[in-house]
Amino acid sequence: MFKEYDVIVVGAGHAGCEAAAAAANLGSSVLLVTMNMETIAQMSCNPAMGGVAKGQIVREIDAMGGYSGIVSDKTTLQFRMLNLSKGPAMWSPRAQIDRKRFAEEWRLALERTPNVDFWQDMVSGLIIKDNKVIGVKTSIGAEIRAKSVVLTNGTFLNGIIHIGEKKFGGGRTGEKAATGITEQLTSIGFESGRMKTGTPPRVDGRSLNYSLMEEQWGDENPGRFSYTDVERPTDKRCCWITYTNSNVHETLKEGFEKSPMFTGRIKGLGPRYCPSIEDKINRFAERDRHQIFVEPEGWNTVEIYVNGFSTSLPEDVQYRALIQIPGFENAKMFRPGYAIEYDYFPPTQLSLTLETKLIQNLFFAGQINGTTGYEEAASQGFIAGINAHQKVTDQHELIMKRSESYIGVLIDDLVTKGTEEPYRMFTSRAEHRLLLRQDNADIRLSPIGHALGLISDERLEKVNKKIANSDEIVAFTRKQGIEMTEANDMLESLNSSVLTQNVKLFSVLSRPQVGIDDLRKVSKTFDEHLSAFSQETIEQAEIKIKYESYFMKEQDIVNKMQKMEDKDINPDFDYSQLGSLSKEAREKLLKIKPRTLGQASRISGVSPSDISVLMVHISK
Amino acid sequence: MFKEYDVIVVGAGHAGCEAAAAAANLGSSVLLVTMNMETIAQMSCNPAMGGVAKGQIVREIDAMGGYSGIVSDKTTLQFRMLNLSKGPAMWSPRAQIDRKRFAEEWRLALERTPNVDFWQDMVSGLIIKDNKVIGVKTSIGAEIRAKSVVLTNGTFLNGIIHIGEKKFGGGRTGEKAATGITEQLTSIGFESGRMKTGTPPRVDGRSLNYSLMEEQWGDENPGRFSYTDVERPTDKRCCWITYTNSNVHETLKEGFEKSPMFTGRIKGLGPRYCPSIEDKINRFAERDRHQIFVEPEGWNTVEIYVNGFSTSLPEDVQYRALIQIPGFENAKMFRPGYAIEYDYFPPTQLSLTLETKLIQNLFFAGQINGTTGYEEAASQGFIAGINAHQKVTDQHELIMKRSESYIGVLIDDLVTKGTEEPYRMFTSRAEHRLLLRQDNADIRLSPIGHALGLISDERLEKVNKKIANSDEIVAFTRKQGIEMTEANDMLESLNSSVLTQNVKLFSVLSRPQVGIDDLRKVSKTFDEHLSAFSQETIEQAEIKIKYESYFMKEQDIVNKMQKMEDKDINPDFDYSQLGSLSKEAREKLLKIKPRTLGQASRISGVSPSDISVLMVHISK
Repeated sequence: MFKEYDVIVVGAGHAGCEAAAAAANLGSSVLLVTMNMETIAQMSCNPAMGGVAKGQIVREIDAMGGYSGIVSDKTTLQFRMLNLSKGPAMWSPRAQIDRKRFAEEWRLALERTPNVDFWQDMVSGLIIKDNKVIGVKTSIGAEIRAKSVVLTNGTFLNGIIHIGEKKFGGGRTGEKAATGITEQLTSIGFESGRMKTGTPPRVDGRSLNYSLMEEQWGDENPGRFSYTDVERPTDKRCCWITYTNSNVHETLKEGFEKSPMFTGRIKGLGPRYCPSIEDKINRFAERDRHQIFVEPEGWNTVEIYVNGFSTSLPEDVQYRALIQIPGFENAKMFRPGYAIEYDYFPPTQLSLTLETKLIQNLFFAGQINGTTGYEEAASQGFIAGINAHQKVTDQHELIMKRSESYIGVLIDDLVTKGTEEPYRMFTSRAEHRLLLRQDNADIRLSPIGHALGLISDERLEKVNKKIANSDEIVAFTRKQGIEMTEANDMLESLNSSVLTQNVKLFSVLSRPQVGIDDLRKVSKTFDEHLSAFSQETIEQAEIKIKYESYFMKEQDIVNKMQKMEDKDINPDFDYSQLGSLSKEAREKLLKIKPRTLGQASRISGVSPSDISVLMVHISK
Repeated sequence: MFKEYDVIVVGAGHAGCEAAAAAANLGSSVLLVTMNMETIAQMSCNPAMGGVAKGQIVREIDAMGGYSGIVSDKTTLQFRMLNLSKGPAMWSPRAQIDRKRFAEEWRLALERTPNVDFWQDMVSGLIIKDNKVIGVKTSIGAEIRAKSVVLTNGTFLNGIIHIGEKKFGGGRTGEKAATGITEQLTSIGFESGRMKTGTPPRVDGRSLNYSLMEEQWGDENPGRFSYTDVERPTDKRCCWITYTNSNVHETLKEGFEKSPMFTGRIKGLGPRYCPSIEDKINRFAERDRHQIFVEPEGWNTVEIYVNGFSTSLPEDVQYRALIQIPGFENAKMFRPGYAIEYDYFPPTQLSLTLETKLIQNLFFAGQINGTTGYEEAASQGFIAGINAHQKVTDQHELIMKRSESYIGVLIDDLVTKGTEEPYRMFTSRAEHRLLLRQDNADIRLSPIGHALGLISDERLEKVNKKIANSDEIVAFTRKQGIEMTEANDMLESLNSSVLTQNVKLFSVLSRPQVGIDDLRKVSKTFDEHLSAFSQETIEQAEIKIKYESYFMKEQDIVNKMQKMEDKDINPDFDYSQLGSLSKEAREKLLKIKPRTLGQASRISGVSPSDISVLMVHISK
């Protein structure tokens, strides 16, 4: 009853949806298998997309032709560009999202993708022949053939939910766990582990006293994730900030002896940078308060997400602590917070394409690889979907570079170093973060999306125009001068030293205190010149003017390091013959099978002298 | 952490939602407990509300202040008044519904009801003291106190899903079953049984060839369920009709040996009047085709509901049969059909208020009582919610009469006769159906809703005006004459005999061939008189003119039988002392504990002579 598909995607969360869309848009016939078609693209945790480093990832996905940015823009409740007071490498888009609308838009987007078929069922195993995956088996006994399979199981593999001393099986609350896959994969040699994540209680917005909290509105002129012209909601919704206090902490501590975290009932490690509230008060005992973000779940619901209060303490402890938070005195809980443990597969078992090393044409993406976060999951799904298509159509593989994208950093980190705790992206993980900005993701990556066939000529043309136009503005500022008399009042008002001679616009604009809009106001010539360009182009020009020298230095470093990255290593290279390698290096290199000398150098336990040895041998 | 509630409603399907809304709107504090807040008011089966007798029930709920009609009107894809060619007692409203929007509107309606709180959790047991329920226990170990509890568990109690030879626990596909409640209730003396229901496969609308099917659009001037002025979608969507054939049937038969229905693996009885396709071809072997309704699931989805093709045969058999239906040659399935078995409690264990006889303040509504259908469930939930409120506030109980509503027929049938198979409403079940029309549900029931406090003065005023105005129109037609010359051309064109003398309008309108609009066209006086009235009022007047004599005869019968209905029996009446009762009658009367002599007369096994005996004794 099923045809043979090019790609089967198992799971329809952020990773699965991007994987299905990407492979299908490239021309593969795709079957998306999900346990429940009513919960496609459900945001299991917070109703938000983006954030520091994560927002950049969403823009990268969008620049290459993925859907996360578009769906987010369509369903935004409010948008903020974080870190605007810092340099542009730190600017990070983040949006509150309508949870229901998000899921609906994703499903609609997939339904409108001609090559995507759907099947509601639980995948209970893979069909494998000669170390190659050739299909999946499902709980109702169906066998579905495919040339490749992408697993994006999220928290469903043998999921166990913990609330205080209670625990029960489940992939999310109210939903069944998935069984069979881990057992099969470990039986054929895969290593698996347990990880843990958690979610806070949800409360009834009608029961909160917002007058005791700080309002937090989004940006007045909201940015966006997508480089396309998506129609966005014109209205926005308010969020609020409040704080825990020592009473809240004392109450929470009463539950510690029943905490599944502290009693050892939860074996898996949780996300360090998205800790539970009990973790926070345990690890940061000196802090007498923690911030709580009060986030609406959508346009048409009173449900509120209590961001910052993730917990798996007994529900009565959750409640007694919650109502001691200012504004929560009369709070009514809708659902308690909980922790969930699930299986993951240490990602060192993957190659940089996200294909497993043990089983050909089998790809993993998302939490199954030990990551946390919607954006991390979506980007892996996107790359896995692309590579699944490329593999089954005998086309070149897509390996993202660390120097060109956060996605490259993410995958290289996972595959090269592995992770023992849920991996989350940060700007600090990207050594070339100066170049990996939210403003230039289109410039960096649209050519890749275009070469693959996911970005139209028209879209690429728009990117090229943005480059050319911003360069033209920069050139104009280098050529066009400004009179002292024009500029000095403005400079003084901005606490910038006054000019003592006429200079070029560029020179004034290079000053950190002076914005391009300040200069427009005093230079009619400049203002007229700019009027022909879009806001985005002007912003790009300003960033170039202010930071180009830093960018160039960074690019020099990239270019130098690129030599290492360009030195390919045959994945089947026989390290055992290299007696001069350290034992540890030999073991690790055999396990990771790095694709380049650069990747080899990032493996922990591989020393510079090991690299020298390698360099000699691989250049032979 | 929980306050003591007046009413806890367990389950948030059609029954639970109406129960929560009704009790809360009456002033009770209500907690609605659901296993998953994302699936409140999910239509588990077909995306439609109403139908023959069922549409009348929705109007009855609406007339008394329930929400099902309003939510349906807001989310209608297309509307049809069924049986318009028959008398007005058979007219039945039915609407295709957007599944997602329906759930969303219901949740929104509940969130806007101030007295309704929500809690996401599984209720695993009741807290009972001195044969009275005083709260519930949940799976996470919470104990929540309440003065009354309404159980509306749908298909979740020990639910088992069957597809071919596979079976797995679950309340709906992808969702967990609920455990604990049946075990507890049977341990304290409740009788329970198993029932079965089923659902068809869902398919990808993009894969169907609609040119091979018959289009079915809704009414051009769509009616509505609600008597209020709900804003409705202005657009509509098409449905289609196609047919099975002998090839389809032969293919299905190949799966019979693996059918859970025919191999005895399913013990519970299924709905006789909503049979599976295998049931249909088995029971009606002489028919070489069955109708299939091809129904869209919503505005923004390609998913299609294959109404008429409910099945639990192996999924490959489902598929091979499906693609032999005209228009389905290239059909892609999204999800297979399946059957589900679940626990119910024979409803003879209830009193006419839907309170259980064994445990005080405990109410049952919906599939737990052995019924099938959204409308049947919603109406029971509505009545149970009202009676739960009335009970805990020491107010009079609400018992609906058979002569005033389908809801009364439904509950009296259930409680008095019980049911061994899923009970569905039909017009034939209502002996006074001539009076129980969709056009007069407001006239019949709004006064009851108003007396309870669920219908505003304004709404009741509107109903009274409808009565007065339609009476005025009738009076006008009795007074106002029409000339032969005015009427005869029109009468001739309608194949109605021509007038031989001038008569009153009433006389012409009483003719079945002549509509009020026909008469308006030829009588300027009449047309002018009517121009002051709403369409609904005019329709009501026309129905009165045409059918009043029948209605009056029926009302006479009701009045005569009412004497039996008015003869109350003390529920604790000691039947054992009445030696002249038959043994069977004594047993049944003791079990059912009828509230009136009329109810006693409907108990199977209670004969007219038993009733005579009773009549003598209860009037003592």
